[in-house]
Amino acid sequence: MATSIPQVQGFQFAGGSCGIKSGGSPDLGLIVADRAVPAAAVTTTNLVQAAPLRLARERLQSGRARAALVNSGNANACTGKPGMRAALSTCALAADLLDTEAELVIPASTGVIGEVLQADRVEAGLPKLVRSLSPARARAFSKAILTTDRGPKVSARQLTLGGKRATVLGIAKGAGMIHPRMATTLAFVVTDAAVSSSLLRRSLTAATEASFNVATVDGETSTNDMILAMASGQSGGAKLKAGDRSLTRFQGALQQVLGDLAEMIVADGEGARHVAEIQVVGASDDRAARRVAERIATSVLVKTALHGKDANWGRILVAAGVAGVPFDPDRVAIRVGDVPIVKAGAPLGAAAERKAARVMAKKRYPIQVRIGSGKGKASYLTCDLGHGYVDVNAGYRS
Amino acid sequence: MATSIPQVQGFQFAGGSCGIKSGGSPDLGLIVADRAVPAAAVTTTNLVQAAPLRLARERLQSGRARAALVNSGNANACTGKPGMRAALSTCALAADLLDTEAELVIPASTGVIGEVLQADRVEAGLPKLVRSLSPARARAFSKAILTTDRGPKVSARQLTLGGKRATVLGIAKGAGMIHPRMATTLAFVVTDAAVSSSLLRRSLTAATEASFNVATVDGETSTNDMILAMASGQSGGAKLKAGDRSLTRFQGALQQVLGDLAEMIVADGEGARHVAEIQVVGASDDRAARRVAERIATSVLVKTALHGKDANWGRILVAAGVAGVPFDPDRVAIRVGDVPIVKAGAPLGAAAERKAARVMAKKRYPIQVRIGSGKGKASYLTCDLGHGYVDVNAGYRS
Repeated sequence: MATSIPQVQGFQFAGGSCGIKSGGSPDLGLIVADRAVPAAAVTTTNLVQAAPLRLARERLQSGRARAALVNSGNANACTGKPGMRAALSTCALAADLLDTEAELVIPASTGVIGEVLQADRVEAGLPKLVRSLSPARARAFSKAILTTDRGPKVSARQLTLGGKRATVLGIAKGAGMIHPRMATTLAFVVTDAAVSSSLLRRSLTAATEASFNVATVDGETSTNDMILAMASGQSGGAKLKAGDRSLTRFQGALQQVLGDLAEMIVADGEGARHVAEIQVVGASDDRAARRVAERIATSVLVKTALHGKDANWGRILVAAGVAGVPFDPDRVAIRVGDVPIVKAGAPLGAAAERKAARVMAKKRYPIQVRIGSGKGKASYLTCDLGHGYVDVNAGYRS
Repeated sequence: MATSIPQVQGFQFAGGSCGIKSGGSPDLGLIVADRAVPAAAVTTTNLVQAAPLRLARERLQSGRARAALVNSGNANACTGKPGMRAALSTCALAADLLDTEAELVIPASTGVIGEVLQADRVEAGLPKLVRSLSPARARAFSKAILTTDRGPKVSARQLTLGGKRATVLGIAKGAGMIHPRMATTLAFVVTDAAVSSSLLRRSLTAATEASFNVATVDGETSTNDMILAMASGQSGGAKLKAGDRSLTRFQGALQQVLGDLAEMIVADGEGARHVAEIQVVGASDDRAARRVAERIATSVLVKTALHGKDANWGRILVAAGVAGVPFDPDRVAIRVGDVPIVKAGAPLGAAAERKAARVMAKKRYPIQVRIGSGKGKASYLTCDLGHGYVDVNAGYRS
């Protein structure tokens, strides 16, 4: 991501270090709109929700926000009342410095669970962070929100809406605990399109369903996950309306941005080297196809086979067989890239598998599983599981 | 398991090598009853079922069996008609050599998926195997059925039934793909108790539910899994009847034997060093407790934390939070062994976690998760996931 990040009218960014992480690593970020703007979020479905997430959800009921205050290194989850106090006080200080209401500051935290956010460090770092705000500092923000990520995740799309050029910019952090229904991922989308908070929420939900919700790293779902979208309306184009073709195009751009980010997150799954797109076709309906795709994508045995570049169609078939979706195993066909390895439920032999293994050396490739002759289809992104995952996760808190 | 294996009246065993595995490793085993005896099995719920398993299920509808013919190194799964022909012909030859009907020979295969069983090798090895049958060769049998196991898995219980001493002997293979609803595990139980096939089936199902079905290595479920039980009735005790206290005691012994085997299988999970018993208490009912326990036991993040001896209660809580069972996170208490690490949803600090880490250095320990004040409880065995698992599974077919 060495390319430049487009600026989005009406937004400023900052990123820096306040000492939550050791060694001066970036750990504090801020997005600020010029004024209170329409905002919406999609959040984790885990029963266990971090203090900042609970606060964010509560505040977003208003459909408006002025700023997002994000820290990495500490998720401030499972921290009871002290955790909520830390979330409240850091947002209050940010609001003071930005001369706005605390209720318009949306908090987000990611990192270790079970330690109260060090509010004193955040508060000591905030004045400098606010002073550094600039429309050109999205890069610094993108670095400040990372945890075990290998690098920043940024995607943008520009489009013409109502005769004016508008931008949709997304910035995410990912790595472990990525799984549908919002695992420890944080993503922030800003746009200068003019859209109400209710249409923004609807667009965001649809775009998430087709991107983050069909991507998995390890089948986990976290306490802190949120995709937050804010829309400044400063592109100058007309306000998007339900039924508009402009709205459809805006949704398309949003989905592309989130799709890019989800793919970057899977590619950066802890220790991952390969991204496989599991495509299930021929199911009775899309829902059935998705269940099968999800089961294959989350199978630890499949994921270790991907790591070993082993065209182990047996594991794929076995995973499909427990998805709870009826199909005839004797009619299954499997392709890795464009190499058929199973036809009519039976393997096509060692030469085909060797050819498939060469496809599996790529960074990204599709695996297509045909389970019948229905019209249902779905695709699901997953990554390999190797030693890197064990290293990161067996030692993460040490 | 260097202790001697008790003989069970009415059964002979054999184990040897027929060349399915390379290097002369044991890969062919036989259990033979003196005559056709009551038999029952619990089998995989995977939609994809191997030829030998389909044949075994069909044959066991009679409730009777004379022999079990087991090979390791090749699962004969996803092999279509040629696979079924191989299963049929090897059983037919065994039946000939044993002078019995083919329908009384129950096949079982475990190993690589997608290669037709090398019937010629099995058939070449069978005459010698049959000649070596002996009541004292259960050990050889126990070695012949292994795949990636570190060693044989044998358990026995002796009890008095109807005034006579009876024995329940179980022999299993495990390692990867162990998960409730029969993953690639094979287990064989022989007893000289006198019990009908219907009572044997009922006892086996109940004992499996309380043992194999609450144990997981990697959340996978295979094409070949089966627990087969055969009862010779030669102890001389009266036939067990429904409602009998003797039957209850027989079921208890069967459950203990299967419980031992399930625990050995989890302890021998591919690359595993630790067995954790996830105990969930305080749920509204046992079913809810079990859902939570299963979700924790199968979480890859929890399993890597177990590997790192990290008392990462946050991951436990997060896994519990997605089980689909309502509970109040602020009332959760977690103990590792007898060390409390979470109370009222909040961590008890670094000193407690260090103490817990010492418990986690043990080969086996319990983790208790209290989610409320209900009477529902469940326990679930799991193991750590480390580099060994990746090594075994990324390279298994290479």
